[in-house]
Amino acid sequence: MPDQILDAHTSDPKLMGWMEGLPPPPDKRLAWARADHMRFPTHRYAYAHMREFLPTVRVSRGQGPVWQLPMALRDDIDAVRFNSLDDGRELTWAESLAVNFTDAVLVIHKGTIVYERYFGVTRPDSTHIAFSVTKSFIGTLAEMLIAEGRLDPSAPMADLIPELNGSGFADATLRQVMDMTTALDFSEEYTDPNSGIGAMSNALGLTPRMPGYKGPTDVYAYLPTIGKAGTHGERFTYRTCNTEVLGWLIARTEGKRLDRVLSERIWQPLGMEQDADFLIDSSGMPFAGGGLNPCLRDMARFGETMRLGGVGNGAQAIASAAVSACREGGHPDRFAPAGYAFIPGGAYSSQWWIMGGNHGVFSARGIHGQAIWIDPVAEVTIARFGSHPTAANAAMDPTSLPAFRAVAEHLMRG
Amino acid sequence: MPDQILDAHTSDPKLMGWMEGLPPPPDKRLAWARADHMRFPTHRYAYAHMREFLPTVRVSRGQGPVWQLPMALRDDIDAVRFNSLDDGRELTWAESLAVNFTDAVLVIHKGTIVYERYFGVTRPDSTHIAFSVTKSFIGTLAEMLIAEGRLDPSAPMADLIPELNGSGFADATLRQVMDMTTALDFSEEYTDPNSGIGAMSNALGLTPRMPGYKGPTDVYAYLPTIGKAGTHGERFTYRTCNTEVLGWLIARTEGKRLDRVLSERIWQPLGMEQDADFLIDSSGMPFAGGGLNPCLRDMARFGETMRLGGVGNGAQAIASAAVSACREGGHPDRFAPAGYAFIPGGAYSSQWWIMGGNHGVFSARGIHGQAIWIDPVAEVTIARFGSHPTAANAAMDPTSLPAFRAVAEHLMRG
Repeated sequence: MPDQILDAHTSDPKLMGWMEGLPPPPDKRLAWARADHMRFPTHRYAYAHMREFLPTVRVSRGQGPVWQLPMALRDDIDAVRFNSLDDGRELTWAESLAVNFTDAVLVIHKGTIVYERYFGVTRPDSTHIAFSVTKSFIGTLAEMLIAEGRLDPSAPMADLIPELNGSGFADATLRQVMDMTTALDFSEEYTDPNSGIGAMSNALGLTPRMPGYKGPTDVYAYLPTIGKAGTHGERFTYRTCNTEVLGWLIARTEGKRLDRVLSERIWQPLGMEQDADFLIDSSGMPFAGGGLNPCLRDMARFGETMRLGGVGNGAQAIASAAVSACREGGHPDRFAPAGYAFIPGGAYSSQWWIMGGNHGVFSARGIHGQAIWIDPVAEVTIARFGSHPTAANAAMDPTSLPAFRAVAEHLMRG
Repeated sequence: MPDQILDAHTSDPKLMGWMEGLPPPPDKRLAWARADHMRFPTHRYAYAHMREFLPTVRVSRGQGPVWQLPMALRDDIDAVRFNSLDDGRELTWAESLAVNFTDAVLVIHKGTIVYERYFGVTRPDSTHIAFSVTKSFIGTLAEMLIAEGRLDPSAPMADLIPELNGSGFADATLRQVMDMTTALDFSEEYTDPNSGIGAMSNALGLTPRMPGYKGPTDVYAYLPTIGKAGTHGERFTYRTCNTEVLGWLIARTEGKRLDRVLSERIWQPLGMEQDADFLIDSSGMPFAGGGLNPCLRDMARFGETMRLGGVGNGAQAIASAAVSACREGGHPDRFAPAGYAFIPGGAYSSQWWIMGGNHGVFSARGIHGQAIWIDPVAEVTIARFGSHPTAANAAMDPTSLPAFRAVAEHLMRG
C-alpha cells in the first residue's frame, strides 16, 4: 500500500507536481473519472481546486467592502505543547500541523489574526472544500428562519416538504433533523460504496457512477427513498442526508436556491473577501451537507461572528437568538450513546458540535480535517483546512482537539 | 422545427423557467449530457451559468479596489434609428436588442456608462460566456509579451513550441498565428460535427463525446494533429485553433497557466469588479479561443482600456505599443478574400477585428452575439452579450454593426 507510507511532507501536492506543467505529464494529471479528486494523495491538490473537477455555483460576496480582520502575528504559537489524546505523546502545535495533513490554518484571538499558515497548493485566496463544515452554515441559516418565525422546529418534515411523505423523514420534526436525532436507514460509512453516503454521493454526481447506473440523479429524487429505522428523537446519529433535507427546506422557504440564500444572509452581510464555490447536483441544488468551498479567512469570519453572538462586520449580521440556539441546544444524553470518545460531555445542536468542557467550545467539523473551533471563554476562533488520508474525524481528533485547546489556553494566558 | 419560431421574447430563459423550481420540473432541466448548454433555446440560460455545467477555473480580480465607471444613463438611445444591412429596413436601437437576442448590453461614452440593460437571466454581476471575444484578450496578452521583447512575432511556431514540429503550425510565424493567416486543415463549421472545430470541442470536453471516443482529450494533444493546407501568410481564414496555440505559448512563456496570466496582467490591473470563470479542458488548460466568462462591465472595462491606448483604472495598464499593434496591424488585402460582406475594408489583427470605415473602429466578436465595439473617434465603447439561435456572425451583423455605428454617431453629435 504505497499511499499509506506518504506523510504530509512526502505527499505535499506542490512537491508531487499534480497538474503542473504546460501540459502536465500524464502521471501528474488528475481526473474526475478516476475519482482522483476524492482520494489520497491526489485529493491534496483537488480539495483546493474542486471547481476544476465539478460543476459549481458561485456564492457571491456582493460588492460591499471587505470586513478587514486586523493582523498581529505571534511567533510563540508554534511551540505550544500538548499531549495526544490517544497515545499521550507530547507534540508541539507546529508538529501537529503535519501530523494532521493541515492545508491551511488561521487563529484569531480577540478579533485579531495571530497565526496564519498556508501549505501545499493553498494560498490566502484559495477556496478549499469545507466538507461538513458546510453543515454548520446550513444549520445557522435554518436557525435564522426559526428566529424570524418562518419555520417551526416542532413541525413534522412531511408538513414542511410534502415530497418527504412516505419517507423516513416524514414524522421527524425539523428540530430532530437539525440535531440529527432522526432514525433513518442511512449509513455514513465513507469507505463502503453501498452505504447511504455512497448512494447519496452517486445521486449528487460527486463521484463517477457505475456503467448502467439507474438510481436517482439528484438529491431531490434521492432523499424520499430513505427509509426509517427506529424511533426519531432518541439519540444522535451523524447522517449527512439530514442536512440535505435542511438545504431543501431553506431553499423552499426562501423561494430561491441555497447559494443565493447563503450569499444574501451570510456572505454579503459578513463582508467576505472572496466568493465561495458551491458544488451542485444535476438539478442545480448545492450540496448542503458538504459542498461549500470558501477561502480560509471567510470561514474564520463566520466563526468569529458566531463567537460574538452574531455580530460581524460591524453589525448584528446573524440574529442573536439563532446563534444562541446553535451554541446552547443539543442534548448530551442523546449524544453520549454515539460513542465519540474524544468528545466527552458533547452534544450536537443545529448542525454544530458542542465540544464539552468549561469553555463553551462549539465547532464545525468536516471530514479530512476541516474545522471551525470557537472558544468563547478564551475569545479564540480557529479555522483549518486539511487533506488527511483518512475520512474520519477519529483519525485527527487526538492530535487536533487538544492542540486547539492548548493554543486557546496559551492565548488566554496572555 | 418548433425552435425556429421562438423569438427573443418567447424564448426568454426566465419566461421558459429553465432550472427554476426547488426541484425544477423534469421538462425545465438542462443537462450537459444532452448538450443543452450549447443549443437554442436552452443555451439562453446556460450561457449565463456555464460553471454550473462544466469545470472552470477562476480568473481572480485580486483584492484591489474596483475601477469605478461613472454612470449617467441617457433615455435617448433607445430611439436611435438605423437601417439593416441586409434588407434595408429601418429599426430602432431598442428594437434591435430583441432581433439580436441580446442578453445584456452596455454603452460607454467618454468614460461614462450612458446605457445599460440586462435581459432574461442576466444581472450586472452575472458572468456570461464571451466565446470568441476571449480571443481578443489572448491576442492582447501576446502583444504585451511582444512589446516586452519576450516573444518574437517573426519566429516560426516550431521554435516557440517544439511539440508543434511536424504539425501544420510548424513553419507558420507567430504573427501569422496571431493574424490567422495560417493555412491549416481545420474547418470552422459550427454545425458540422466532423469539422475541425467539432473535433476540437470534443478534445476540450465542451460537448459530450460519442461512446468509444478515442481521440485527444485535451487541447495539447489535439493541436499537433492539425495538418497544413496551403501556404501560410497569404490570406485570413478564421480558425479558433490559432488562438489555442497562442494560449499555450503565452502560458509557457510566462511559466503559468493562462488564467493566472490573465488575472495578473489584465484582471487585477484593470480593477475588474468580478472574478471571471474560464472553461478548462481535462489538463486544466483554459479554452483560449472561447472559454472566458466575464461580467459585462468587466468586458467593457477591457474595451475602454483598449480605446484609451492601454490606460485603464488610472494607469498604463497595457503597454501602448501592444494596443497599437492590435488596432493598427492586419492586412486588408489578406482579409478581403475571406468575403465578409458586412466588413468592407476590414482586417484581422492580433485577434481583433478591424472594422473599416473612418472611425478606426476595432472589435472583439464572439459567436451568438458577444461583442466589444470600440470607436476611438466617437469615444464610444459598447459591450454586449447575446444568445442568438444561429452560431454565425452573419446572422447578427446586419442588425448589429449599423446599430453600433448609429449609436456612436448619435453620441458624437452630443
